[in-house]
Parts: sequence; C-alpha cells; structure tokens
Amino acid sequence: MFQNYSDPGGPELGRKHLPLLRKALTRMGLDGMIVPHEDEWQNEYVPAAYDRLAWLTGFTGSAGAAIVLKEEAAIFTDGRYTLQVRAQVDGKLFSYRDLVEGGPAAYIRERGAGATIGYDPKLVSPDSLDRLKSAAEAAGAKLTPVAPNPIDAAWANRPPVPLARVEPHETAFTGEDAASKRRRIGEAIGADGADAAIITSPASLAWLFNIRGGDVARSPLPLGEAVLRADGRADLFLAPEKVTPELRTFLGNEVALRRPEDLPEALASLKGQRVRLDPASASAWYFEALENAGAQIRRAVDPVVLPRAKKNAAEVQGARDAHARDGAAVSNYLHWLATDAQTGKVDEISACKRLEEFRVETGALKDLSFDSISGAGPNGAIVHYRVSTKTNRKLGRGSLFLIDSGGQYKDGTTDITRTVAIGRASREMKDRFTRVLKGHIALARVRFPAGTTGHQLDALARMSLWEAGLDYDHGTGHGVGSYLGVHEGPHRIAKAVNTVALEPGMIVSNEPGYYKTGGYGIRIENLQVVTPAAPIEGGERPMLGFETLTLAPIARDLILKPLLTKAELDWLNAYHARVWDVVGPQLSGAAKAWLEQATAKI
Amino acid sequence: MFQNYSDPGGPELGRKHLPLLRKALTRMGLDGMIVPHEDEWQNEYVPAAYDRLAWLTGFTGSAGAAIVLKEEAAIFTDGRYTLQVRAQVDGKLFSYRDLVEGGPAAYIRERGAGATIGYDPKLVSPDSLDRLKSAAEAAGAKLTPVAPNPIDAAWANRPPVPLARVEPHETAFTGEDAASKRRRIGEAIGADGADAAIITSPASLAWLFNIRGGDVARSPLPLGEAVLRADGRADLFLAPEKVTPELRTFLGNEVALRRPEDLPEALASLKGQRVRLDPASASAWYFEALENAGAQIRRAVDPVVLPRAKKNAAEVQGARDAHARDGAAVSNYLHWLATDAQTGKVDEISACKRLEEFRVETGALKDLSFDSISGAGPNGAIVHYRVSTKTNRKLGRGSLFLIDSGGQYKDGTTDITRTVAIGRASREMKDRFTRVLKGHIALARVRFPAGTTGHQLDALARMSLWEAGLDYDHGTGHGVGSYLGVHEGPHRIAKAVNTVALEPGMIVSNEPGYYKTGGYGIRIENLQVVTPAAPIEGGERPMLGFETLTLAPIARDLILKPLLTKAELDWLNAYHARVWDVVGPQLSGAAKAWLEQATAKI
Repeated sequence: MFQNYSDPGGPELGRKHLPLLRKALTRMGLDGMIVPHEDEWQNEYVPAAYDRLAWLTGFTGSAGAAIVLKEEAAIFTDGRYTLQVRAQVDGKLFSYRDLVEGGPAAYIRERGAGATIGYDPKLVSPDSLDRLKSAAEAAGAKLTPVAPNPIDAAWANRPPVPLARVEPHETAFTGEDAASKRRRIGEAIGADGADAAIITSPASLAWLFNIRGGDVARSPLPLGEAVLRADGRADLFLAPEKVTPELRTFLGNEVALRRPEDLPEALASLKGQRVRLDPASASAWYFEALENAGAQIRRAVDPVVLPRAKKNAAEVQGARDAHARDGAAVSNYLHWLATDAQTGKVDEISACKRLEEFRVETGALKDLSFDSISGAGPNGAIVHYRVSTKTNRKLGRGSLFLIDSGGQYKDGTTDITRTVAIGRASREMKDRFTRVLKGHIALARVRFPAGTTGHQLDALARMSLWEAGLDYDHGTGHGVGSYLGVHEGPHRIAKAVNTVALEPGMIVSNEPGYYKTGGYGIRIENLQVVTPAAPIEGGERPMLGFETLTLAPIARDLILKPLLTKAELDWLNAYHARVWDVVGPQLSGAAKAWLEQATAKI
Repeated sequence: MFQNYSDPGGPELGRKHLPLLRKALTRMGLDGMIVPHEDEWQNEYVPAAYDRLAWLTGFTGSAGAAIVLKEEAAIFTDGRYTLQVRAQVDGKLFSYRDLVEGGPAAYIRERGAGATIGYDPKLVSPDSLDRLKSAAEAAGAKLTPVAPNPIDAAWANRPPVPLARVEPHETAFTGEDAASKRRRIGEAIGADGADAAIITSPASLAWLFNIRGGDVARSPLPLGEAVLRADGRADLFLAPEKVTPELRTFLGNEVALRRPEDLPEALASLKGQRVRLDPASASAWYFEALENAGAQIRRAVDPVVLPRAKKNAAEVQGARDAHARDGAAVSNYLHWLATDAQTGKVDEISACKRLEEFRVETGALKDLSFDSISGAGPNGAIVHYRVSTKTNRKLGRGSLFLIDSGGQYKDGTTDITRTVAIGRASREMKDRFTRVLKGHIALARVRFPAGTTGHQLDALARMSLWEAGLDYDHGTGHGVGSYLGVHEGPHRIAKAVNTVALEPGMIVSNEPGYYKTGGYGIRIENLQVVTPAAPIEGGERPMLGFETLTLAPIARDLILKPLLTKAELDWLNAYHARVWDVVGPQLSGAAKAWLEQATAKI
C-alpha cells in the first residue's frame, strides 16, 4: 500500500531532540538556529531525511518553521494547524506562534538581541533572508550561514537520503524529445539576454530532461539541479547512485552528468556570465554563490515553468488515457461506496484502502498523486484533513463522505473529489451539493477569450453559493503536471490575483466546495484542460474553453433538480453520457449495471 | 441647450497655429515643445482655455499629445481615434503616431538628438516626466521646464479661463459637514505618518469642502487646490473671482482661502514636513516644488479618493431621488422613441435634443453628466461615438438606436444606456440583446463577500457573450460621483486588475454591450450601489450586493424569452415592477399607458 495512516510526529520528538540541537549549536559557537519546514527543493512531500522540523519539534504539518535560542524556542504555523501543533509539539519547550503574522523575522526582532543565530542558506529564499537580516539588524542580533546543517549531524538514525534510480520518460508520453526542449528553452533564455539558467525545481528538471525519479513520495521527482545554457547544452547534477548506463545514453552528449558536490564549482565557473535564477524556487545559497562567483544574476521565473504547464498533444492524450483508466477505478469504487459501504461500519481508513486497491488493480498505478483525503461526516469539513489511526471515523448512515484522491500513471496524473451520501442525505445537504455542482458546471462550461486569467473565472464557481450566503475558503483550481506534481503552477483559479493567462494545454482542477464545521464537507472536483481557441458558429472571436478530463459519476441522488437550469442539466447529462461511453466498457457485472443507472439522464 | 453638436477642431487650426508656436519657441531659445491633451487638473472635459492640443493641432479627442520640433511635428492618439485624427489634423504638418506604443518618449528617443525641448511641468505626471527624461538622455536631447506655457502667450483670442462662482453644497445632500470630513481625512493623513496632504483633484476638493463649481462642462467642479493638515485645518486656493462672502462664511475659520498665485509660497513653507502627494493626480510641478522646498514627499493615493467613493446614507438617498426623477424623464423619452421616433425621419441630434428637453422639464437638471452618445445603426457600434453635424444619421427603420446619457442633479449624478428597435429588429439583434441583458442581470443579482474586487465580477457580465463567441472591448463598470464626475474611481469592474475592493455605498455602472462594426451597437447600462453586508436566510456569511438605482424600462421587444432562465426572468419582472411603482406615478397620458405595457411581466 502507498498511503500510511500512522502519525509519525508528537511531543516526544521535541523533548528528545531540542537538547541535542542546542548542544550542537553551543559547540559551533551559535546561540540559536532557524529551522524551516522546507527542504532545499521546496518539495510538497518532504523526504523523511529532510524533515528537520518534524525531527526537532514533532510537528508534521505541511508548512511551518521553528526558531531555537539558548533559553527559549518557538514554532510557527498557520491557521490550518492551530489544533495539530498543540497536539504534536510540547508547549513547554516551544511557544506557539503565527507563521503569517511576522513569523521568525518578527521573533528575532522581538527576542533576538545579542544572539548569533544560524541559518541554512539552502533552506531560505532570498526574500525571506532579506527580511530575517533586517530583523536581526534591528534587534542587534547576528545571522550566520551554517553548512552542513547542524541538525543533520545531531540526528541519530537519520533516514537515508533518497537515492532512487532516475529513469528516462518515453517520448510517447512527453511528446517532445529532451534535446528539442533544451534547445527551445535555451533559445528563450538567450532571447531574454542571459547566457544560462540555473534550474533548481525537480519538476522542471524532470520535464526538461524527460526523466522521472523516485526520491519523493507521491510525485516521481528526481532531486537534483541543472545549468542550462542558451545553446541548449546542460550540466545535470545527480547523485551517481541514481544514474544508470541507460540514463547516460538517453541523456546524450549535450548533457554533462555531474555530481552534486561539483555544483559550487560549476556556479563559480559562471563568473562574468549573465545567469537567470528564479527567486521563487532557488534558495539564498544560489544567489550568494553566484554573487561570490562574479556572475550577473537575472531574477526571472524558471524558464521551464510555463512550457511545462502547456501540455502538448501527446501529454493531453496521455491525460485522457490516464483519466479513462482512473475513472474506471473510481467508478468501481463509487459502486462499492453505494453498496458495501452503506452499512455504517466502514471507516475512513478502510475506505481509503479500498480505493487504493481499485487503482492498483489497473496494473498501471505508479503511486498515489497525494495522500487521499477521506472525510466522513464532520471530518469532511476539515479542508486539509488527512486521516490517521487517531482520527479514523466511521462512515455513518445519514452523513456525507468526501473522498479526494488521485493516481500517478506514466501517461498522466489524476486528482478527483467525489462526495456521496451514506444513507439518506438531508435537504440542506442536497441544496449545498447542488449549489457546489452549479459552480462546478459554470466553470466547466465557460468559454473565454485569450488572455483571461484564473482570478477572472473564479467567481463563476462561487456565485451560486454566494447567493445563499455561503462560500469556501480555498482556491477553485490548481494546475496539474503530466506524471509530475499534482499541484503545479504557474496558472491557478482563485480569488487571489494570478497574472498568468490560461493557455491551451494547461490542466487545471475545478473544485468548488462547501464545508459545514462539525457537520459535513462537500467538494466536486474534476480536472479539465484548456482547449485551443475555436471558432463558435455565429460568433466573431475564437474562444478558449475547457475539456473535462475526469470521468466518474457525480452523485445524482444529492442533486435538487429544480435548482439546475436547462443548460446545467444538459451539461450534466452530456457529462454522464461520456462517463458511460468511456468507463462503461471497462466495468462488468454489478458495477457496470450500477454505472448505467448512475449516469442515466436526469 | 447643454450639448453642442458642432465640431470645433480641424486641420485649419494646425495650419494657423503651429507656425505661431514655433516662432514663440525660437524666441525662447527652444527647439521644440511637448503638448499633452491634459490640463493641469486632468479634467475629462478640458475647458476651452486649456485645450492647447486642439488649438495647436485641430484634434479634439479625449486623449492625445503632440510634439513639435523645428522641422517636424507629430501627434499621438490611441486606437479609438485612428480615423478622427486623420480628419482633424493635417498630415503634412503632423505625422500620426500611436500614443500607447511609446508615445512622445519614443519619438524623442528616435528624433530628438541635439534638441532642447520644452515641457510644461504642470501638464505631465512625475512618471511620464521620468520616461521623457530618460528618452532625452538616450537621444542626447535636453528637456527644459517652461512657465508660463508658451502656447498661452501665442494664443490670440484665447477663451477666458473659467472663473465660475463656487457654491456651498448643502449638508442635506452631502450627509456630512465639511469640518467633520476635514477632521477625519486629516486624522487618516496623520495616522499614515504625514503632516499634510496636497489635494489637486477638483473632485476631491469639491467633496472635501462640500463645494461645487462651474469651471468645467458636465461636472460641477471647482478648479483649485488645497493643503490639508493632519489637524483638519486647510488652505484652499481659489481665484478670488469665484469666491463670494457666503462661501467664505460657509468654509469657516479652519479654512484659509488663498489665491492660486500663493500656492508656490505655500508649498515652500512645507520645508521639513512630511507631505502626502498622489503621483496619479498631481503633476511633476508639485513634486519639484516640494523637493525644492525640502519637504519629505510621501507618495500615496489622494486620501479623499476612497471616502469620496463610499457614499453615505444621505448621498445614497440622493442618488435614489435623482434616479427616480431622471428615470421619469428617460421613460417619457423612451415612449417618444417608441412612437414619434419610429418614422425613420428622426436623426441622432434631434433625438439627443429631445432627451435633453425631457431632463430640463424636471426643473432640477444642472447639466448633463456627459455629452450623450446617440448612435443610430452603425454609429451605435462606435463605442466612443459623439454625434456632430458631420456624422448625424437618421434613426432608420429596421435598425437599433443606442442612447447613453446622464444628468447632473444636486442630489445625484445619473448615467443610463438604453438600446431600442426602430421598426423591426432582426433575430440576430434580439439574440445579442438578450445575451447582453443576461450579463447585465448576472452582475445586478450577484451577492459577494467583503473584499471582492471588480475584476473578480467582470466575467459575470461577459459569460453569455463569450458562450456565443462574442465580447466587448470596454470595461463593464465605472464608479460615479455624487453630483460630481460621472467617471470616478478608485473602484472599477473590468478585465484589468483593480485592487480596490467594492465597499458599501460605492456607486458603479453595469454596462455590458455588443458592437457589430458597420451594423449596430447594443448596451444596457444601469447604475447600482453596493449594499451593506446583509445576512441571507439560511446562509452563514453576510454578503454584499447591489441595489439598482437606474429606473427605466429595458426593451421587452428585443428579448428572446427562451434564452432567459427563470431567475433572470424573475429579476427582469421585479425590476420592471419597481420602475412602474416609482416612475409610473410621475408620468401621465399616453406615456403612462405605454410605461405600463413596457414594464408588464413577461
């Protein structure tokens, strides 16, 4: 099984490890240390060997930081983790602080007078380092870069750093060979007035070289770095343990494979050159290294980010294939939920496991694309819920069950949320479900001109909830990679301004929701791909639109039909007809019979 | 009559005046001069005495600039004026250039080598001056501030500068006395860390001191300036000719009335003080004067802008009253259009005049709020159309007529667009009209949470057009003043990002449209005011919404009923019922009978 339901954190960790770090700091002549949650690649799933914050404090949330001083320490988390941090971190050792309102910089300003505080330059962005430095200056503290990270030395039985074999990703899936990618991205770098770019994002590395790795859970990322030159030649830094002779051949003569420990020397050799570097993904360490090398730094977005987001025809076809396969697994699962899981005795973990089994049965699953969110009743209302043995809850009758999950397949990455009734749903539940569905349909049906960005479309998914005095506190859509990260920019559909226009080939989720605290959660999520501008009969301007990729029934028994307009009903019926056409032939027996009814016209 | 249908510009002006300016420049030792369209207050309607660009070139559009060198000259306009500039400006004297793609700065960079070029520092913003200066430096040209403006001296028979009497605006309309406004804005200035703010926007002046003037067409603006101190005391700079003893008494002891020629001295006296100044409204002259004075400039938005936009209860009630009155005038007019104007013999100018008569008959009209856009057939498709004797066109049968107009009343400013059929409309016209109406209704009905900005709502008004491959190339809504400017920020509903959240009391237009070049134009415009956050039955979060202010029937015979959803029909019927309730009692005879039918349920 891929998903793990234990909870590895807890206050014991901080009690054991905080004194060890303090001892190490004293040996190094330091009074304190800043410990962010992030690893040096800003992974969403941080490999165990790099989860220094969890080791130090016991906190396992997805965002946070700690600061350790001689006599005191603090942990910083955001509103999502108010309860979790108190359960996992000993409040006698760490004071609980808000990450958003000031964070470590405010703490240093307040309490850091006279202290010499260490930081790992590979773990902080240049912008946050600037903030920390000016706070230290104001407080009369001193910030010192430390390498290697003192935690790594103090960490007894540290899990091994991931060294998974890196494999070529076939052109059948990528649609463009790596040499062509290197050349066109190199040209763009040159056209922008730079001689080279440093690529530090593992997803960009994977896309650019058509490689996939296994260093990180839930996403086939190879951890490494690259220097791409304007002529398309590149240095690729990968631990030798990850490299096979086949990979070497696949990469070809224009890619020099080098060891990670050669990276500083490679950066030093860029003296006098114009080097593009993305402050959103590269740490302060790179900026310092290039400045010391005498390179001219050009701050600009990672040149791979936009091309990676605009999927080509092969990638879009791969996404269709992956979703057809995944849709069959999910439809089998929805049949199971509609029958075997209606007893009231199934729990969130077993419901998660059952879905994983259906996906494994496809024979093509490489990994989940994220840990499933399996929320029964009130747990469904916790937006960032992850079930553990401690929180596991039965799918009781008369409640809603929300399941948000996805798979990694070589041809594509999926992400789908369905909400189903266990027993009878209340009229309020149906009203909310129908409003969420109306928002989903509005965003699935919309046509829009080139240049439109996600923040322009976000309200379409919320209108029907707003009308009833309701809303949801998360974005409406995130980008998705192609057998890569399930959360992948630069585009996004949300209230917040996003200046990246939606372009053909971009995959984005459509996932409005409604959450009643202590009651239930509803979310309906499909992935959809932006379709090329197409003329509309009788129209004057070609419009972009969306093709829905995800194929699994939406609970008909939760819909209040009179709330839907004719256009909305037409969309739903056409969608279900597609689900039946594509998924039906992959199902058999009772599941198939159930699907026919679940996708019937309403 | 208020509106003038002659076209004062034309190539003769440039032929006569360009040599005069060149002579004046030579006398001053200058090789050239930059001549923007703007006056020093950035008025939308530039008083004749300040329309230096029209005098120099013959161009009368609402945006543009010219540059004059010894041997050549150029005029810069945007896409709206491609045809007009060629008709009004002699191409042998001025080359036609694009204002947006580079403008005067690009011209200087290209052609200015060695020249000493004058500019009037009161007519350029600090940002555009920076661009001009770096262009001059790159070209090896020299920019020199000149005062007074050499055009004013060369201009024989220059119209007198406006000196209209400034009058108090009663608290019954403003809802807050000026002393209270000065104190709370002063406090905000102080809280922001400044000692004083310079107010250069005439609309801000009018709002802050509760005064109205007559210096500018279509908007009761007093031209002048003020220094407002953090303690609420102010210096107000007005030409003495505009000031009556009553005004002096009304303004009170905390406002020192001073002459415009004292302004430089007043700025000089701010030495060492922290002075707030808005680079979006104050010219480079202010920045230079304050820098020379040794003041600390704080660049920040004019502190009056946001409070001015958020109308209080008295202003909102005034707007309702003004719209009830204006709605009756417009309804009488729509009756006239539906009957007398159906002959095919009425023309755009007489249609304009007839509407003006109905508004004058209210006995309360102070001015139009802008020159009416009266577009018959293909002229309706020209978004910025202004009828003149040269372009005047008959309202032919089988066509659409678009009329966009508004009135200035002491209790409020109105702005309404209606589109009506003359004779029989085609099915295509009705389809487009209904789609525009669907967009209008979506934006009228929407409820939204606090913090929502205009760019988040804009798509609601376009969705139905986008669906058919159509769109319109203008914003969806602009702010409107309270017996002030009909275009008044800072909020806006448009595709472009606007970071100002919609707040209760803000008035905004709702005006989607459709334009078929060479065919017809459609626009449906009502003003609406943001209503305070109100709980919704069964809802969880109070939502803001809109109350429609404009009251006049929307052409029922142009609606394809099957295209409307039930919710849309309900909105339309409820709106028409309100029109009948409020406007009906003000009408009589045939007009009243017509209104009853025009507002009947469909």
